[in-house]
Amino acid sequence: MSEMHEIPERSGTAFRLNKGERLVVIDPRGEQVADLLAFNAHDIDEVISSGRTLDYAETIQLTTGHKLYSNRSSVMLAIEEDTVGRHDFLLTPCSYDTFHHFYPTLPPHRGCFGNLAAALEPYGVTPDRIPVAFNCFMNVPIDGETGKLRVLPPISRAGDFIAFRAAMDLVIGLTACSAPDSNGGTFKPIHYRVEAA
Amino acid sequence: MSEMHEIPERSGTAFRLNKGERLVVIDPRGEQVADLLAFNAHDIDEVISSGRTLDYAETIQLTTGHKLYSNRSSVMLAIEEDTVGRHDFLLTPCSYDTFHHFYPTLPPHRGCFGNLAAALEPYGVTPDRIPVAFNCFMNVPIDGETGKLRVLPPISRAGDFIAFRAAMDLVIGLTACSAPDSNGGTFKPIHYRVEAA
Repeated sequence: MSEMHEIPERSGTAFRLNKGERLVVIDPRGEQVADLLAFNAHDIDEVISSGRTLDYAETIQLTTGHKLYSNRSSVMLAIEEDTVGRHDFLLTPCSYDTFHHFYPTLPPHRGCFGNLAAALEPYGVTPDRIPVAFNCFMNVPIDGETGKLRVLPPISRAGDFIAFRAAMDLVIGLTACSAPDSNGGTFKPIHYRVEAA
Repeated sequence: MSEMHEIPERSGTAFRLNKGERLVVIDPRGEQVADLLAFNAHDIDEVISSGRTLDYAETIQLTTGHKLYSNRSSVMLAIEEDTVGRHDFLLTPCSYDTFHHFYPTLPPHRGCFGNLAAALEPYGVTPDRIPVAFNCFMNVPIDGETGKLRVLPPISRAGDFIAFRAAMDLVIGLTACSAPDSNGGTFKPIHYRVEAA
C-alpha cells in the first residue's frame, strides 16, 4: 500500500508525479475541495489547460474516462476512477484578492492561489504562471438558460476520491481549499497517495 | 469618426489599446467569431483570465456591464455595449491541433491560435502565454444538467458589435475565426475600430 499524505486545512503542497504513476486525491471528511495543477516536469511552460480540455471533452462535467490536456494539446492526466462525478474546471484558485471580494468581513487569506504559489516556487513556477485549476470535488452548477454559476458545497462524502494516471512526468500542485463557500463553511484536510506505475 | 479596420477571413492582428480608449468589434456579415486576448502593455505577464472573470461575474454569459479581469485580479476591459449578448469565455483559440482533432478530413490550419501567436510575437508574447480567449460572438450553449457543451453558429447578424473600454494600457490580439463549426461553416472578416478616450 502506498503512503497516505495529508494536506492540512487551508494549505497546499507540490510534488513530482512520474509518467505512469497514479495519483489518488481523497476527501477524508466529505465536502472539501482540492485545487489541482499540473506542469510538464521537464518544461514548466507546458501547463494544464481548462480551455483545451473542455474543448476536446465537449462537456464541463469531467469524470472517469476524460483526459486533462495541456496548453500544447498533450494529455497530462487521465481520470481513471471518480466516486463523485462533480468537479469544477472553470474557476481560478481562490486568492487574497478573491477573499477580499467575496468575504470582505473575514480576515483575508492567501487562499489556494497563495498556497500553490508557495508550494510551486521551488519548481520554478511563478505566480503569474498559475492557470485555472482542476478543482476536485468543487460543485459549481451552471444554469443553462441564464449562464449563472453558483458555488455550492461539494457532493463528496467522507472517503470519496478521484484517481488520475499521469501521461507524462509532471509537477503537481494540490491544496486543501481555503474558501468558505467551496466547502460549506468549514475547513478540512485533503488526503492523497501516489501509486507506482 | 475613427478608422475602421478589417481583419481578413482566417487571420488575426494585434495592436495597442490605451487606457480609456474604446474598442468596438463588429461582425460585418453576421455569424462570425472574433477571439480577443488582452495583455498589460507594460508587463505582458499580466494577461486576461477567464477563471478570474467568471469567478467575479458569477455567470458564464458576459455582456454589457461585465468586466474582464486579469490573472492579477485587475480590471482590463469593461463591456460597455453589446448588441448580441452571447459570447464564449471557456474555450482556447482553435489551433493546428484542434483542427486535426475536430476536422480530420479538412486541410489543417494554424487557426486563431497560430494567427494570434504570429500577431503577438512582436510584443514579446510567446505561444505558451496564450490563454483562454474571450471569444466575441461565439455561441457555446451548455446543458445545465449534463454539462455538455455545443459549438453552434453565432446569433450575431450583420452589423452587430460589442464595445469594450480599456481600464489599463493594453496589447490586444484579435482574430477573424478559422474554425468551421464556430461560424456556421463559412469564413468571414471581422471589423474593428478604436475610439479615443
